[in-house]
Amino acid sequence: MINRLCIIGVGLIGGSLARALRAVGYCGEVIGAGRNPAHLRQAVELGVIDRFETDPGQAVAGADVVLVAVPLGAMEGVFRAIRGHLAGDAVLTDAGSAKGSVIEAARRAFGRVPDYFVPGHPIAGTENSGVAASVPDLYKNRRVILTPLEHTDPAAASRVRGMWEAAGAHVSEMEPAHHDAVLAATSHLPHVLAFTLVDSLARLGDREEIFTYAAGGFRDFTRIASSDPVMWRDICLANDDAIRRMIERFIDDLKEVGKAVQEHDGHRLLEIFTSAKQARDRFIGHD
Amino acid sequence: MINRLCIIGVGLIGGSLARALRAVGYCGEVIGAGRNPAHLRQAVELGVIDRFETDPGQAVAGADVVLVAVPLGAMEGVFRAIRGHLAGDAVLTDAGSAKGSVIEAARRAFGRVPDYFVPGHPIAGTENSGVAASVPDLYKNRRVILTPLEHTDPAAASRVRGMWEAAGAHVSEMEPAHHDAVLAATSHLPHVLAFTLVDSLARLGDREEIFTYAAGGFRDFTRIASSDPVMWRDICLANDDAIRRMIERFIDDLKEVGKAVQEHDGHRLLEIFTSAKQARDRFIGHD
Repeated sequence: MINRLCIIGVGLIGGSLARALRAVGYCGEVIGAGRNPAHLRQAVELGVIDRFETDPGQAVAGADVVLVAVPLGAMEGVFRAIRGHLAGDAVLTDAGSAKGSVIEAARRAFGRVPDYFVPGHPIAGTENSGVAASVPDLYKNRRVILTPLEHTDPAAASRVRGMWEAAGAHVSEMEPAHHDAVLAATSHLPHVLAFTLVDSLARLGDREEIFTYAAGGFRDFTRIASSDPVMWRDICLANDDAIRRMIERFIDDLKEVGKAVQEHDGHRLLEIFTSAKQARDRFIGHD
Repeated sequence: MINRLCIIGVGLIGGSLARALRAVGYCGEVIGAGRNPAHLRQAVELGVIDRFETDPGQAVAGADVVLVAVPLGAMEGVFRAIRGHLAGDAVLTDAGSAKGSVIEAARRAFGRVPDYFVPGHPIAGTENSGVAASVPDLYKNRRVILTPLEHTDPAAASRVRGMWEAAGAHVSEMEPAHHDAVLAATSHLPHVLAFTLVDSLARLGDREEIFTYAAGGFRDFTRIASSDPVMWRDICLANDDAIRRMIERFIDDLKEVGKAVQEHDGHRLLEIFTSAKQARDRFIGHD
């Protein structure tokens, strides 16, 4: 149970957690914080938070759990703003999609990574953003990865785990660098590919016609290109090494496919396409 | 109205057309043809076709409209098998995803492209295949592109247009080469990217873990990688020039994104991601 939950950044991710915990009666008061009072007022009207502060330092006062759910580029500033204002027994966690950079931001802001800070990443979300898109079941049966450090207080980690489990998620732990490599492959690279493809097509001369004939598969394939550009810029900057490696690997693999097309190597194309279909049907399911 | 419709290749595409036309009473008898009697028997049991022949030449006898809906690599063989067996007033069309290669196949099989042949492409389909996946509303409000040649009989083109309109589709006409370039951009390249990505990840050492943490966006993004590998091998071989050009263009664009990541050029990344989001939201809709 959480008496007072403070959510800094009340958007899709933070708002959905508040809704989920309220729905199961897991938390008492919910305080929101952020830069935009209009968004925060909307969050109060929607019943997502009880009240808000625009100063993060004031918002965290008396909270037993603090979730920072802002774009990765804003993490360090938030950490600096709340330093010295957290309650003695407070647990701090975040929802950033890359962990190495958040840990570095905490190190810079606090001098060392606090024992009560449990880096976390809920693998959920849609291409929509903002508190209006928040829903109580966003985390139901979804995965949350925590990346505690060696000196992280086990009681703090267990408290954060309990919170996400109360929201319906399956929680596991990983090394931060491993998390960042796995997410670069499964999330960051696909988003980069979708953004690049849509931008590439949009710059073709006959783009109106191009998009007119884009069918169902294209709609699914490019849905993630409707995601928040600022959030994804920040992810690319925060997880740059792992993403760069995945892009280079993908370019090599795509060159091989291009070569097989050019050389009319039907055998090689069939091999690649069959391997992909089998992997997807096996691991993701045929939907 | 069609008295006798012959569908060669009774899968998702051919089966769904038969279902659609039957549903609105647009055709009398439907004859199926294909290589696999078990699939054809299933099509009869499902009520998609009335009867079948495994010899395409026998199947087309007496049909007033013949649709060839087989993988692109099988088109020429089918054309050769039906040559000399078509009724005097028969109209021939196809459902291939690339048009230049089908027109060449017809030229080789018939000596010249017949006046009564109307190359066509319904832009519909899912990652599922086979007659069991066929549905009567697959073409409802979807686009069908016809690519008639200069000497194509206008009455034949109008007959094929009427058939697709009866199935609920919006029909337009294009030059074959233009069709192939547009589809390379909107359909063929995205499928190549999805297949390549899933195959690339499947070859990573920790693939079980990789796919465990693949979230909703990944599922949407890679859905088309569950498509039929043989069909897509054939498309890549049939539309090789346009696809190769799109792959090369995409690699150049992706290299630029990779460079921006490496150089921490947040301004450039934001520019590309914003352009993509705006184009998708504008042309495809925010769904």
